[in-house]
Amino acid sequence: MARSTAAVLTAFNQPLEIREYGVPEQVGEGEVLVRVEMAGICGTDVHLWKGELPIPLPNILGHETVGRIAAIGGAVVDWTGQVLAVGDRITWASSVVCGECFYCRQKGAPTRCVSRKAYGISYSCAEPPHLRGGYAEYIQLRRGSSLFKLPDTLPTEAVIGAGCALNTAIHGLERAPVQWGDTVVIQGSGPVGLAALAVAKQSGAGKLIVVGGPAHRLVLAREFGADVVIDIDELRTPEERVQRVLSECGGYGADSVIECVGIPAAVNEGLEYCRDGASYLVLGQYANAGNIDFNPHTITRKQLRVVGSWAFEHRHVHQALRMLDECGWKDLFARQVTHRFSLAQANEALETTRRWASGKSVIVP
Amino acid sequence: MARSTAAVLTAFNQPLEIREYGVPEQVGEGEVLVRVEMAGICGTDVHLWKGELPIPLPNILGHETVGRIAAIGGAVVDWTGQVLAVGDRITWASSVVCGECFYCRQKGAPTRCVSRKAYGISYSCAEPPHLRGGYAEYIQLRRGSSLFKLPDTLPTEAVIGAGCALNTAIHGLERAPVQWGDTVVIQGSGPVGLAALAVAKQSGAGKLIVVGGPAHRLVLAREFGADVVIDIDELRTPEERVQRVLSECGGYGADSVIECVGIPAAVNEGLEYCRDGASYLVLGQYANAGNIDFNPHTITRKQLRVVGSWAFEHRHVHQALRMLDECGWKDLFARQVTHRFSLAQANEALETTRRWASGKSVIVP
Amino acid sequence: MARSTAAVLTAFNQPLEIREYGVPEQVGEGEVLVRVEMAGICGTDVHLWKGELPIPLPNILGHETVGRIAAIGGAVVDWTGQVLAVGDRITWASSVVCGECFYCRQKGAPTRCVSRKAYGISYSCAEPPHLRGGYAEYIQLRRGSSLFKLPDTLPTEAVIGAGCALNTAIHGLERAPVQWGDTVVIQGSGPVGLAALAVAKQSGAGKLIVVGGPAHRLVLAREFGADVVIDIDELRTPEERVQRVLSECGGYGADSVIECVGIPAAVNEGLEYCRDGASYLVLGQYANAGNIDFNPHTITRKQLRVVGSWAFEHRHVHQALRMLDECGWKDLFARQVTHRFSLAQANEALETTRRWASGKSVIVP
Amino acid sequence: MARSTAAVLTAFNQPLEIREYGVPEQVGEGEVLVRVEMAGICGTDVHLWKGELPIPLPNILGHETVGRIAAIGGAVVDWTGQVLAVGDRITWASSVVCGECFYCRQKGAPTRCVSRKAYGISYSCAEPPHLRGGYAEYIQLRRGSSLFKLPDTLPTEAVIGAGCALNTAIHGLERAPVQWGDTVVIQGSGPVGLAALAVAKQSGAGKLIVVGGPAHRLVLAREFGADVVIDIDELRTPEERVQRVLSECGGYGADSVIECVGIPAAVNEGLEYCRDGASYLVLGQYANAGNIDFNPHTITRKQLRVVGSWAFEHRHVHQALRMLDECGWKDLFARQVTHRFSLAQANEALETTRRWASGKSVIVP
Repeated sequence: MARSTAAVLTAFNQPLEIREYGVPEQVGEGEVLVRVEMAGICGTDVHLWKGELPIPLPNILGHETVGRIAAIGGAVVDWTGQVLAVGDRITWASSVVCGECFYCRQKGAPTRCVSRKAYGISYSCAEPPHLRGGYAEYIQLRRGSSLFKLPDTLPTEAVIGAGCALNTAIHGLERAPVQWGDTVVIQGSGPVGLAALAVAKQSGAGKLIVVGGPAHRLVLAREFGADVVIDIDELRTPEERVQRVLSECGGYGADSVIECVGIPAAVNEGLEYCRDGASYLVLGQYANAGNIDFNPHTITRKQLRVVGSWAFEHRHVHQALRMLDECGWKDLFARQVTHRFSLAQANEALETTRRWASGKSVIVP
Repeated sequence: MARSTAAVLTAFNQPLEIREYGVPEQVGEGEVLVRVEMAGICGTDVHLWKGELPIPLPNILGHETVGRIAAIGGAVVDWTGQVLAVGDRITWASSVVCGECFYCRQKGAPTRCVSRKAYGISYSCAEPPHLRGGYAEYIQLRRGSSLFKLPDTLPTEAVIGAGCALNTAIHGLERAPVQWGDTVVIQGSGPVGLAALAVAKQSGAGKLIVVGGPAHRLVLAREFGADVVIDIDELRTPEERVQRVLSECGGYGADSVIECVGIPAAVNEGLEYCRDGASYLVLGQYANAGNIDFNPHTITRKQLRVVGSWAFEHRHVHQALRMLDECGWKDLFARQVTHRFSLAQANEALETTRRWASGKSVIVP
Repeated sequence: MARSTAAVLTAFNQPLEIREYGVPEQVGEGEVLVRVEMAGICGTDVHLWKGELPIPLPNILGHETVGRIAAIGGAVVDWTGQVLAVGDRITWASSVVCGECFYCRQKGAPTRCVSRKAYGISYSCAEPPHLRGGYAEYIQLRRGSSLFKLPDTLPTEAVIGAGCALNTAIHGLERAPVQWGDTVVIQGSGPVGLAALAVAKQSGAGKLIVVGGPAHRLVLAREFGADVVIDIDELRTPEERVQRVLSECGGYGADSVIECVGIPAAVNEGLEYCRDGASYLVLGQYANAGNIDFNPHTITRKQLRVVGSWAFEHRHVHQALRMLDECGWKDLFARQVTHRFSLAQANEALETTRRWASGKSVIVP
Repeated sequence: MARSTAAVLTAFNQPLEIREYGVPEQVGEGEVLVRVEMAGICGTDVHLWKGELPIPLPNILGHETVGRIAAIGGAVVDWTGQVLAVGDRITWASSVVCGECFYCRQKGAPTRCVSRKAYGISYSCAEPPHLRGGYAEYIQLRRGSSLFKLPDTLPTEAVIGAGCALNTAIHGLERAPVQWGDTVVIQGSGPVGLAALAVAKQSGAGKLIVVGGPAHRLVLAREFGADVVIDIDELRTPEERVQRVLSECGGYGADSVIECVGIPAAVNEGLEYCRDGASYLVLGQYANAGNIDFNPHTITRKQLRVVGSWAFEHRHVHQALRMLDECGWKDLFARQVTHRFSLAQANEALETTRRWASGKSVIVP
């Protein structure tokens, strides 16, 4: 039996350890074994490493992955119905949902599936088949996973450069759509912020304002289509930033504001950016980072729509791949992949992401 | 010149004083002079009397009014295009908007008109033409007011019994619609709560749960169609009420929750009533009653839509009158008018409303 | 091995023949064998019997069925996640879809699934397992069927009385929704017409006008909530009917018109019922019954929305069952079941439906 | 009193005649007198000239106009609230609506206003104030017209190059929106077709296919963003074109098809371009050009949405001007103005448009 090296989180806030697991030669009906080509380091991985979400240990992180099929269990088709074969380059939705529960079926909200599990997050690698995360040479995918065969026109770097952020942004802007011509403010210039910027641009936004930092991220925001960037290291108080945003929005505020920060205080600041009747998308509060002092009268008086969006459905991955390949975004996202590491350098990769030092750090195992 | 008696708010928290103002024999082009038949006491009037909103003094309160035209300035048509004449029984939208500002024109949000003024709220009766509120024998309406000629089939009591609460609820549920079959929770059993209940019922809600009190209001809620009522005097803690609501909603929570309370803390409790993916309508936070300790992660994780709605547009008055007259609601709302007072008893009328002692208190001047 | 009697269509326009097929004692993984309690005769069955749609012969018709589980292949849950057991009373979605094709996955339109097959329509009973239609003592359901365990509160007659018409109407009105207060015209008083009437009523329609016949069907329409009924045997020309509808709609026409007739000419007549800006739902043109002389300028000038809707998704069956059980419709629909026949009387049952002589004819095998 | 030359339609199909009318030195309250800078020749003008729509004669055509204010009646603000002054360069919505009728008020459909009148179409110039069309040195605008002050950044050529086609396309795509990533087919490469192409592109369409001609118009379509152009002079039968479109759409058909042709037969062809569940916008059937042989079963079976859209609301003019000025379209549209004529050459201008020989022909009086 072959062996696969993996970078394993064995204790929170401790260095990942390199371990080895057996790789099966054959896989069960509907399963797929993948030789990993590239695994993205997501900001969420840093939170997981710090122990900020309850995950089982030991754990092979990595939920943004592209690889080639090494073994396949019978006739397996990808999400769009293409028959898959050994050697095909694929990516996949990081989560598997049941398709049968109250949320999956009755409420059309599979992101809230009661038994949803995600590769690189929800599985202990102490249990067989062990290889359920992207920071490894091989990953073994469950029957029922949503797989996507990648067209030759779409580079691996584009898929990993977009990462789960683009899927998340597509879902969010589906729930709180930008109309063409809208003035849009994006709070945050991390991966989710840039992805939201791209989707807002693709939706025909008229004026795009990004409030974020540090400066090198705002250069990227410009490349992604921001008309105005506001550097939080220059305008250091919410009051200054609100004043600046309002002056860019004719004094009234933006039609649509998209929060991609994750710090609770951003919400109160962002609501100030809104014109009356605006839409406010809370996209970045993925982790529970605490409470704010909040006035609900604001929602009534300004007649707002405050919309939450959790993760993404599998069809959003399909939309993301199409947006990259067919709408001209693949080169910009591919250029996000700025730092490459081996599996042995996995800790360095995490650290680079943690320090916001990179565009996108990836592991090439 | 004839004279009109009026009950005037001259100082906050002080008894209204009876004063007299001259009544013109003729009115200007497009204006209408109305002999008041009935003026409703709205809960907002109590807040105004307490000085909780910034209004000019002295002030003739009363923004829910039905009367007959006593004088008319030329050819005036009502909102639906009917030609009006002296003697016609009418009601009107309490506000006049400019129709030209950023919100009226460009954003389709006339409730946020930058120069909106409301009868019974925004006018000092120290200035001519003095008579701009419903607590008086006569009221003089501006050119451009949205007037509605009442059909003979629609009793004055039904219109005043519904009051501005029904208009407000119709607007709110337009912004956060109830789908037929939905499980809906209404927080609050005051006039806005009952009106929201009626609109949710008319929208085909499947199960209607009202959380409120006191007990005599919950009897009304039952009459208006509530399937379940939860008395806050019996279940005294949010935890107990949340548990009860969830158990009525299959453990997951409601599809739609409508806040009609006005106390900020109700918002956190109401968000707990929501199933993931639910809609939460913040309808009752009309006054700024302070802040709450709030976790924005809830909106993302539960994938909610939190929707604000401010007051109502003139077309909502038209919808309310049609709902009363054509959809079978007029008798139920007419029965809300339980306490009648003369102008001289205006303070007693206010006090009765303040104490929640009545269905609806009205002045018959 | 037990035997099941079935009424079999062996040649179009010829009497059904009674045949016998073997009933397995055990069924495969995920399959369910059902002892039929009641099978509805749908108007479509008459069309199928006449050979108006291309179906394989011989064929056991019957796509509206309730029965009790006689055998079950392992752990099977119903559509809502309830575990099923022998003896449970169930109904099911008449079609099985692939869940993977372009329409199922990428376009969210499973009614247009490229490999959709329906019980009682798409299967030859010459091939094992033979029993794939409702006109039989037993029916054998495929793995992946959408099953619905019926609550004790919901009589079999209500489910069969509603039949596939209610599912179809729910889907149609989801695509072309009726807003509360709308004036709605329904063309046709057959099962789909009455079901559309019920859904429009449940949606809060303000005025409901049914154009149909014969007279005994219009009596039913009144019971289902029609405010106005127009008998096509009394007003015999489209011109008379259009004039009458317009006079009931203030001269302008209806907000929403729902075609449930199936005769192509109904479409031109129905478009005349529409006010400018109305919605027109083409729900009855399920079979290809030929062409009309049509002016597309009408759609532009009257600024219409003309919406098609094909069959229904499985979630619409769930909604239908909830509407029957929880929204007060079950008694009205149960009373539709006016004529009961044995399997041996299957031809008489078909004939009764063909002659519009019944509310709903059913087979009790 | 000054005099204004005008090109007057005195009899259908006859050359326009040059006449003179008096120009008032002062205008009434709210009125505006404009010195015309440029008037576009719309394809509709050719239809009007041929007598295909019922208009009063004699008539000064011209409903696409930019000019400078020569006289103004008191304090007049433009649609966005800017105060206007003599010398300001403006354009205006070609129609004036009542704002009070059933369609304006109750149904939110002012394009169907019962007393709508359009400059350059609805007015006889035999009646004072005579000057109600753009083919003249001066035009006198009614009180209540929707005026738009043009920013210095927006050239007159861009506004006239876009013409009423862009307003019409914006309205149409508001009613039948294109989602980002959609595959869209546009039937027709005239001004409405190019404008619809621009709006679809601005909405983020993924693949844009234009079916039209002649060849020089398809070159423009490429410049406006078409990914594929299909020349009706090369593929001469509907069958060939349908086959080509389907092959460009993965065999299933387009997500959205926009008819901008005006020939009734285009509708049947366009419905063939649709995938099941598609949206079909009937935008070009502005004139009644006769009937087609049509199968309504298609709408049900393919589960289509067939949407009509009539003309445009005044807010769409505002959106068009913003799209030109702020979303990067002004240069492309300005380049459409390829042929300039004097008033004396008005017949030549009409003829050039009639022969499809120009991008856009304009009169510079």
